[in-house]
Amino acid sequence: MLAAGLNANLGGRNHAPVEVERMVIRWAAEMFGFPDTTSGVLVTGSSMANFIAILTASRAVPDGTDLREQGVAGRKLVGYAAQTAHGCVARAFDMAGLGMKALRRVPVDAAFRMDMQALRRMVAQDRADGYEPFLVVGTAGTVDTGSVDPLDDLADYAKAEKLWFHVDGAFGALAQLAPDYAPLLKGLERADSLAFDFHKWAQVPYDAGCVLVREQGRQAATFAQSLAYLSREDRGLAADAPWFCDLGPDLSRGFRALKVWFTLAGFGTQGLGNVVAQSCTVAQYLASRVADTPGLTLLAPVTLNIVCFRVDVPDVDDLDTLNAELVKDLQESGIAAPSTTRLYGKLAIRAAIVNHRTTKKDADIMLAGLVDLAQARLGRPLA
Amino acid sequence: MLAAGLNANLGGRNHAPVEVERMVIRWAAEMFGFPDTTSGVLVTGSSMANFIAILTASRAVPDGTDLREQGVAGRKLVGYAAQTAHGCVARAFDMAGLGMKALRRVPVDAAFRMDMQALRRMVAQDRADGYEPFLVVGTAGTVDTGSVDPLDDLADYAKAEKLWFHVDGAFGALAQLAPDYAPLLKGLERADSLAFDFHKWAQVPYDAGCVLVREQGRQAATFAQSLAYLSREDRGLAADAPWFCDLGPDLSRGFRALKVWFTLAGFGTQGLGNVVAQSCTVAQYLASRVADTPGLTLLAPVTLNIVCFRVDVPDVDDLDTLNAELVKDLQESGIAAPSTTRLYGKLAIRAAIVNHRTTKKDADIMLAGLVDLAQARLGRPLA
Repeated sequence: MLAAGLNANLGGRNHAPVEVERMVIRWAAEMFGFPDTTSGVLVTGSSMANFIAILTASRAVPDGTDLREQGVAGRKLVGYAAQTAHGCVARAFDMAGLGMKALRRVPVDAAFRMDMQALRRMVAQDRADGYEPFLVVGTAGTVDTGSVDPLDDLADYAKAEKLWFHVDGAFGALAQLAPDYAPLLKGLERADSLAFDFHKWAQVPYDAGCVLVREQGRQAATFAQSLAYLSREDRGLAADAPWFCDLGPDLSRGFRALKVWFTLAGFGTQGLGNVVAQSCTVAQYLASRVADTPGLTLLAPVTLNIVCFRVDVPDVDDLDTLNAELVKDLQESGIAAPSTTRLYGKLAIRAAIVNHRTTKKDADIMLAGLVDLAQARLGRPLA
Repeated sequence: MLAAGLNANLGGRNHAPVEVERMVIRWAAEMFGFPDTTSGVLVTGSSMANFIAILTASRAVPDGTDLREQGVAGRKLVGYAAQTAHGCVARAFDMAGLGMKALRRVPVDAAFRMDMQALRRMVAQDRADGYEPFLVVGTAGTVDTGSVDPLDDLADYAKAEKLWFHVDGAFGALAQLAPDYAPLLKGLERADSLAFDFHKWAQVPYDAGCVLVREQGRQAATFAQSLAYLSREDRGLAADAPWFCDLGPDLSRGFRALKVWFTLAGFGTQGLGNVVAQSCTVAQYLASRVADTPGLTLLAPVTLNIVCFRVDVPDVDDLDTLNAELVKDLQESGIAAPSTTRLYGKLAIRAAIVNHRTTKKDADIMLAGLVDLAQARLGRPLA
């Protein structure tokens, strides 16, 4: 809130708010096991963070910085992400002019994790066909089910194949702060770049995404421009390059670092780790309650904090419509606000637990409400 | 400030903050003479707003939406902007994969306005060479001198040549609110898209840029995606499409509409127009004082609120270095914070007057301070 009163522009120049953002970036790098030389910038959210990382990766290919002047037309760059990757990864390919079809979608296993064998086959085929693979995106916490791609295998593979390894850790990367869950993310610390949000699980108010890039200079090589009216000096307001406007698309930049700084300083990384662990515990509890409730079916394994399930009773023709209506009933009742998604073509009720005040009791209340609403719609007991 | 407490995500769904942003977009459309059907979205700043508009323009060519899937490689799209256009226009071409060389830079006249004859020649030549011109960008208030491209001529020309006419009005578009200055912007109301900032001249705290697109559906055709977990419904939280995430790159979106709403409601468009007019009056005053002060030279005509000038005395070998040092002296003295730019290869002191509290007296104080500092460095009177 203070940020609005200060009205700072964090595009660059030499003033205190810029140092606060630099400190936040250093903390973030440390949190995720990235080196001191890591560059990074706060952005609106992971959609923008992924776009920045993917552009940076595309400019890191041999002679890649020439693409800035020449455009991407001369190269056949292709990247890889699991079918479960967030839509913003495809949108980044769209916006970057590579085209969404240049993002190859790799099949997943039964736990919704990228199939490494399939990835290997697809990369080999593309190379044989004259394409230029440059990037593989692993997801730490997919948006539909919370699954985590095999990041350690991906790090090995990317290194061997000389691909840029980017991790989309929108919310899931924060599991790094919870000692019981951090092992799920092994390999993330070897990524070339990482996108994640301080809003959502890190409890910072919207919007506060972040991108980190391991190799010094790569991000600036992708975004820095020389503009006459923003020349850099040895002292005065124009000192202290590189500026944050050299690391992403924005020149006008609010002071979102301040709310991140206060949240990190207030909760501490251990406090945030506790929030993460608690959310995951509630999710596991909800999953066990779903499994124990006749008429409800769990639709995906619970890795982190997302539970996908639905009302699943015999003698109902259209379970998709029933469950979609029930979610709207729940939202409008004020009891709970789950969303929906689709898994194996089935409409699923999706509960994502991110608030530090959500407890097992809330899970009970939601399920009880859901069962009541379902029975009202069906005109009979669920089981 | 309230926005942080509410912690809303304005990516979409059906809740009150989304309606506030819709209202701000409608006001903005009305302010600039755009139709009711105009779409738009609040973003970080004009860099992002220009990127969104330019991407939208590139997808508005025949079969342009195919580029989203296929990439831009199959087409030879080229656009045009004056040499004085902001660097973020070139950066948008860079990020969009078109390449910065696909943005043709049109020469300017002595008043730093786009040379229409040169534009016509360049477009004709590109068509003859097999390129596909799709866009012309006019600037309302260039960043170096505040000059305004001949927007009315550009609107005519773009229509005749079937080019998308985009206006980068980062700060200058706000002159529309000042009756004495609005005529300078004639033609802006016919643009296909407009980028401008509510921060800077509209006095809203950073960050609050805005993009408007005239033709209904164009923006969504460029950015909308269908994601399973964000399916749209007839009621409940997922009602009320299109969502703002369909109109730009961000899914996570803060409630920056609130501060814009309060500022517009508080100042009123007339109040903001007064701020604009006052800034321009101070700029004209500063220019006249520069002209009257021996040893100072005005380097560009003053159109809006930017004054470019410098210390210009005989017997100094390197006036560029002298003036650069003087700007740093001024910044570090705490007297005033002008920046620098380059015009015709000469380093200029650049004063951009945007604060509603800046008066003629501040202009006097800055000039007096500058003259003192210059005399101290030179060891003699300026004249």
